[in-house]
Amino acid sequence: MAELLLAPWADDHRARITETLFDWLRIPSISADPLHAGDVRSSAERGAALLREAGLEHVGILETGDGEGLPAVYGDWLHAGDGAPTVLVYGHHDVQPVDPLELWTSPPFEPVIVDGECRARGAIDDKGQVLYEIEAARGLLATTGALPVNLKFLIEGEEEVGSPNFERLLTEQAGLLAADVVVVSDTGMLAPDVPSATVSMRGLVGFDVSLRTASIDLHSGMWGGTVPNAARLVAELAAALHDEHHRVTVPGFYDRVETLSGAEQASIDAQPFDETDFRAQAGGVAYLEGEEGYSALERVGVRPTAEIVGIHGGYGGPGLKTIVPATAGFKVALRLVPDQRPAEIEAAFRAWIAERVPAGVEVVVTGEGGVAPAVTPIDHPAMQALADAIAAVWGDAPLWTREGGSGPEEALGRLIDAPVLFLGVGLPDDRIHAPNERMVMDQFWRGLLAAGELLDRLGRLDVGASAGAR
Amino acid sequence: MAELLLAPWADDHRARITETLFDWLRIPSISADPLHAGDVRSSAERGAALLREAGLEHVGILETGDGEGLPAVYGDWLHAGDGAPTVLVYGHHDVQPVDPLELWTSPPFEPVIVDGECRARGAIDDKGQVLYEIEAARGLLATTGALPVNLKFLIEGEEEVGSPNFERLLTEQAGLLAADVVVVSDTGMLAPDVPSATVSMRGLVGFDVSLRTASIDLHSGMWGGTVPNAARLVAELAAALHDEHHRVTVPGFYDRVETLSGAEQASIDAQPFDETDFRAQAGGVAYLEGEEGYSALERVGVRPTAEIVGIHGGYGGPGLKTIVPATAGFKVALRLVPDQRPAEIEAAFRAWIAERVPAGVEVVVTGEGGVAPAVTPIDHPAMQALADAIAAVWGDAPLWTREGGSGPEEALGRLIDAPVLFLGVGLPDDRIHAPNERMVMDQFWRGLLAAGELLDRLGRLDVGASAGAR
Repeated sequence: MAELLLAPWADDHRARITETLFDWLRIPSISADPLHAGDVRSSAERGAALLREAGLEHVGILETGDGEGLPAVYGDWLHAGDGAPTVLVYGHHDVQPVDPLELWTSPPFEPVIVDGECRARGAIDDKGQVLYEIEAARGLLATTGALPVNLKFLIEGEEEVGSPNFERLLTEQAGLLAADVVVVSDTGMLAPDVPSATVSMRGLVGFDVSLRTASIDLHSGMWGGTVPNAARLVAELAAALHDEHHRVTVPGFYDRVETLSGAEQASIDAQPFDETDFRAQAGGVAYLEGEEGYSALERVGVRPTAEIVGIHGGYGGPGLKTIVPATAGFKVALRLVPDQRPAEIEAAFRAWIAERVPAGVEVVVTGEGGVAPAVTPIDHPAMQALADAIAAVWGDAPLWTREGGSGPEEALGRLIDAPVLFLGVGLPDDRIHAPNERMVMDQFWRGLLAAGELLDRLGRLDVGASAGAR
Repeated sequence: MAELLLAPWADDHRARITETLFDWLRIPSISADPLHAGDVRSSAERGAALLREAGLEHVGILETGDGEGLPAVYGDWLHAGDGAPTVLVYGHHDVQPVDPLELWTSPPFEPVIVDGECRARGAIDDKGQVLYEIEAARGLLATTGALPVNLKFLIEGEEEVGSPNFERLLTEQAGLLAADVVVVSDTGMLAPDVPSATVSMRGLVGFDVSLRTASIDLHSGMWGGTVPNAARLVAELAAALHDEHHRVTVPGFYDRVETLSGAEQASIDAQPFDETDFRAQAGGVAYLEGEEGYSALERVGVRPTAEIVGIHGGYGGPGLKTIVPATAGFKVALRLVPDQRPAEIEAAFRAWIAERVPAGVEVVVTGEGGVAPAVTPIDHPAMQALADAIAAVWGDAPLWTREGGSGPEEALGRLIDAPVLFLGVGLPDDRIHAPNERMVMDQFWRGLLAAGELLDRLGRLDVGASAGAR
């Protein structure tokens, strides 16, 4: 790797960068929990400090949602000249909740390196990936005194709760955030020796559905068999979300789902897939299941899905409590693909619920964020720069994949009006959103080098040529 | 009421008895929670002290389950002579859990009297009902120096967890507990001005069903749509327990269900039923539902039922966590009627679960107690004594009802080999097992008087005549 721009600098700064990573990971910036709002702010301030130390300018906190939202971080370096492209790097500093805590082998906010992997909540999703972007900019500034592009950073604080204020932020700060290319570092690749890059992320609309059938839980002996049972109603709703072919039953759900081009279908069919490995990476599941007529890779990448992410009602303690529960609820995450539209899907889901809940049962459906699916055209010139940067570090050109996860990338591409490149070093068994989340440190260092290579190659991009393709 | 045996004595002791009740209710004897095992023991010791103060003899704690179970209390007075019948009074001193705590208007273990009702966990189920039996014995001994029957008390400490060690206790202590008649005070009546007494209680078998589909929760974007989802599986199981006619789908569930005699069917049909009142008492439910072809009173009294008492899996905190849950479970209470058998129903339920859970999914089905249904023949001579005692206090002869709840009464009747009389003063809106459990104090004082009247009438019973009818 001696020929790579940042290799010597990264070697010299290994200990400092690792310590910097640990310090950031120690902040429990859980955006889903209002009790951690102060930690999300501390995390934003830490991110701002890192940008300043790297040599970025105009660094500051961007408040969101009229101050009701959680803070994002901004910083830029704009001295590459008018002829150079402007690149906006996007990532997020908030993290997922950590329960069930008892399954962590080390505390989630006390990062450790074990077997070459950094274990902590946020290690790969997404502080680790944001940090190699920051350090790449720092390395280039430190070693060359300049950057090959005009660079902007936007580090969000609400990604893990569905980015409720992100579109508004992009709209309100349109001038500040204007760019020719967006680089997102929040995704993964197929394997350390099978480099790949995402060209698409699914959209997401989430819901919390809460039912109340009575003012109090009732004695199951006195009332059971004759009054509505909230836990049973919720079970019926959650079970009815899929039919016997594992297709989502919400009317119109599949209406706008795009048919893949022959070339992209061929690319998906060419991806290596070992079901045994796949099941092992998936926490040792005994079998795979899902929408009939599609492969597992299709189902996680190019097909929309609905997952029950939680269901709760009635007594959950030791032994038995003989009640008819009065309240129960479930949470569902719907992943969307092109050209499904969050607002349409939300309306269809709400109508589906309303039709199924008996009159007189109180039902509250709370939307938990809406993100449209995102796709980057693989023939865009900036995609060649990304392919070259990855090939320079990993030795092979990347396969183009579609990621099953969701982020605010669609809004970025649409509102910044620029192609979105996904440079991501995650691996399938990184335990994202689960106990013992990790980042493989080899992948981190490669990510840092690749981020430097990518900025270098984007600096040679003819912005005028790409403008029409935005 | 001046003609009733205990009326003057009860008037004199009102303040002391109320304070005694409060003291007992202050002990949080929650049998379902191992953290409260010490409180259940304290409650047993308090019960023993009350028996001693009342004048009972041979008072002591009965350990259960080789010392692994929770303690029962025993005491007797055996000086009525060989010609007098021996009466075993049964009740329980353990209580239900108290969650959701935030719905209590006053703390569950700080009893208060509001609007003539005593509010506390255990007020009606069952410490209050045990106490009026103890106080009736105390009153008779205090005022007459003797009791009309040989009297034994058995106060259980595991009733609310399905009496797992009760049959063994009855078998091991068969000599100690031998009796001609059993009196149970743990049930209710239709209304304060519609006296009634139960002739039957449903049986109960409960289960906790826990599933695991993977070693960890998985990211719903990366794995959703292709791996099994424990929360969805649990929802499907819970929803499949009833068909579209609200009938339980476990094969053979209804096979042994008895057809009522014409006389008893007529008695049920004659019971007053106002659906609006019934729904209001049931915490304000908007509608009634249940097994097709049966009235609400039939469904809670003479038909078996299955209730989901809890369902839990995945994320239940604020906002959304985008996971595929690896674990989930539900708890179910099956109420049984004559002549269903707990062991057969348990086997059928386990087979039903096993057939529906896909291979490779870990499933643990934990049985939570088994109680057979109990029926007392209404033509037994002791039933006339009960009817007369109730008529003396309430002014009207009782209607005979079937209670939807469950208790260890079947084992009592079978192993003690004696008819089981149900003297119970509970009311439909006593919020049993729910927040703000209450006992209407007027009913308590009437229960005390009726308990005295009943012992007096049982004392005149020809034990020899009833022996054949046991």
